[in-house]
Amino acid sequence: MQRILAIDAGGTSTRAVIAGLDGRCEGFGRGAGGNPISSGVDGALRAVADATAAALRQASVGADAAAELAEFECIVVAMAGKSGGLPDARISERLAELGVRGRLELESDLLAMFCSGTASPDGYALAAGTGAVAARVRGHRLDRVAGGTGWLLGDEGSGFWIGHRVARAVIAHLDGLGPETALTALLLAELGLNPSDGEPAEGRPGVLVPLIAELYDLRPVQLSRFAPLAFRAGNDEVATRILGDAASALAAMLDAAREPGLDGPLVLGGSVLGAGLLAAGSPVAVTLLEDLRASHPVPVNDGAVGAALLALLHAGVDVDDDLFARLTTTVERHRITRVRGRKSSLRHLGKSS
Amino acid sequence: MQRILAIDAGGTSTRAVIAGLDGRCEGFGRGAGGNPISSGVDGALRAVADATAAALRQASVGADAAAELAEFECIVVAMAGKSGGLPDARISERLAELGVRGRLELESDLLAMFCSGTASPDGYALAAGTGAVAARVRGHRLDRVAGGTGWLLGDEGSGFWIGHRVARAVIAHLDGLGPETALTALLLAELGLNPSDGEPAEGRPGVLVPLIAELYDLRPVQLSRFAPLAFRAGNDEVATRILGDAASALAAMLDAAREPGLDGPLVLGGSVLGAGLLAAGSPVAVTLLEDLRASHPVPVNDGAVGAALLALLHAGVDVDDDLFARLTTTVERHRITRVRGRKSSLRHLGKSS
Repeated sequence: MQRILAIDAGGTSTRAVIAGLDGRCEGFGRGAGGNPISSGVDGALRAVADATAAALRQASVGADAAAELAEFECIVVAMAGKSGGLPDARISERLAELGVRGRLELESDLLAMFCSGTASPDGYALAAGTGAVAARVRGHRLDRVAGGTGWLLGDEGSGFWIGHRVARAVIAHLDGLGPETALTALLLAELGLNPSDGEPAEGRPGVLVPLIAELYDLRPVQLSRFAPLAFRAGNDEVATRILGDAASALAAMLDAAREPGLDGPLVLGGSVLGAGLLAAGSPVAVTLLEDLRASHPVPVNDGAVGAALLALLHAGVDVDDDLFARLTTTVERHRITRVRGRKSSLRHLGKSS
Repeated sequence: MQRILAIDAGGTSTRAVIAGLDGRCEGFGRGAGGNPISSGVDGALRAVADATAAALRQASVGADAAAELAEFECIVVAMAGKSGGLPDARISERLAELGVRGRLELESDLLAMFCSGTASPDGYALAAGTGAVAARVRGHRLDRVAGGTGWLLGDEGSGFWIGHRVARAVIAHLDGLGPETALTALLLAELGLNPSDGEPAEGRPGVLVPLIAELYDLRPVQLSRFAPLAFRAGNDEVATRILGDAASALAAMLDAAREPGLDGPLVLGGSVLGAGLLAAGSPVAVTLLEDLRASHPVPVNDGAVGAALLALLHAGVDVDDDLFARLTTTVERHRITRVRGRKSSLRHLGKSS
């Protein structure tokens, strides 16, 4: 049987999917962060190999022969900026060490994310994780990208941007430059600081000195870690303003990618849009959805399904709604299976010890 | 004759002043950046030593004896955050290598900047260079400081903050996320990029890729290098808004330090307030002055005079307006003398070669 291999290499984790040309997933595997910029070239290659090896192990259960498994009609690797500086040859070389063979195609992780939500060749994608980026997709290609220029230069509405605003709001509060906010107690607790820490100096609370030291000890992008505090701050005015501004910025990013003549579904991805802004009942979610002028956006976990869909297209498969539904359902089933498998073996180990 | 030695160690340069207890400057010297955080501990110590050695050389012209020169009633070193992590003992040790002896006192560079503008023990200081900070001064001590929390967490209105906004505005323009601005041409020229550089991709101009790469190659604080572009952009709406916001932020910082009961002069320092916002005829200067509610602020170059004033106070000298005027006049005379001296020797070298 003919198969494809699809790898979605993200900043925090990497996912590999093995599927038949009928869209039925046979193996799913995970690896560590696979972005060559944040994980380094060697780290990214290791993540790609680990995820692939795990998917091969899962798929080999009940498969005809291990040898047959390693031959693929197409191998897609989806990454930020297509390859983010990772040369094709290095990827092929590493996969060959696992016995994997097949034509390699690099795709953008943003396009893979879009294709995780729909079989339509046209539409829009909006991703907000640590960064933020929007795209118009036409004929399964990125037609117009807006945003995604990184924490220092753009990415308004991203996890970094929200977390950075949270940190600045707390510093401004303690410095007497901004309004009081519930975010201060949340941030101090998150960093294990006590409001009474430090010696008050020059008319400012003592905790300001250790707080500033803790925050400068982080790499700037790590401020994205504080984005969830804005969602946990309840009706706090400062937090509400930050999230409202994030929603507006994300909507503006999507607007920049829109073209009146092109319709299609809107796919949403990334940790901020998934678990945050669109959380049920959040007033910010309502604002965002209104701003996005899309009442039924499709939220997705990642680009695993989409990378597989792109691999099927490269292999010449005609992807219709039925095949897309089969692919989505079976990928999600294998994703869960793997977690269950690990849990039960942990239970087993616990009992035998 | 009894003397003081005062060293004002700044981020980009260090200045040393030798003065008699009558306030008459006898020597002025310069060194490289003396901030231990940006120049390193060894670099900062070297800058302090270089500036001191240069001041000693200038003062020894016509002095009674070199041995007498090296004994000081008080030595003041003014630095960001007083010592910024530089231990007293290391400074004394380094100065002792030059034969310099005397009681060492560390002072804040912000207080030294204030004292460069006035002999009054009370008043306000506002500094905007790479960073931004305001202070209320009472009895020649910092009574309340606002701002100065660094590029990542605060410093609104600073050179970094303006330069960062300039860079983001240009990226937003090229990305179709923000309005057209004259800053784009200025920034591309500053970086030696041509608007037609690169291959247009995904609906965006090609120059975006090399521009983003150039900007991420800088350390974030180096974005302050683009602040002057905002002043050079003429009536550009985006630039005017950035500078207007900077003026408001600086005024708010000063307001946070104000106390109704405490009057006194307002001293302004730093590259942004000196050469930028207060440049004659700039509409932003008018806005800022209105916002600051101070019609006659005192602009100063640096904290050299103020560090000397603080050293005189530590030596028990009663600093009145006459002594302050003598100190200011003679420091400025020695500052210019040194530059002239260097220029004439360069001319001399030019002729003889």
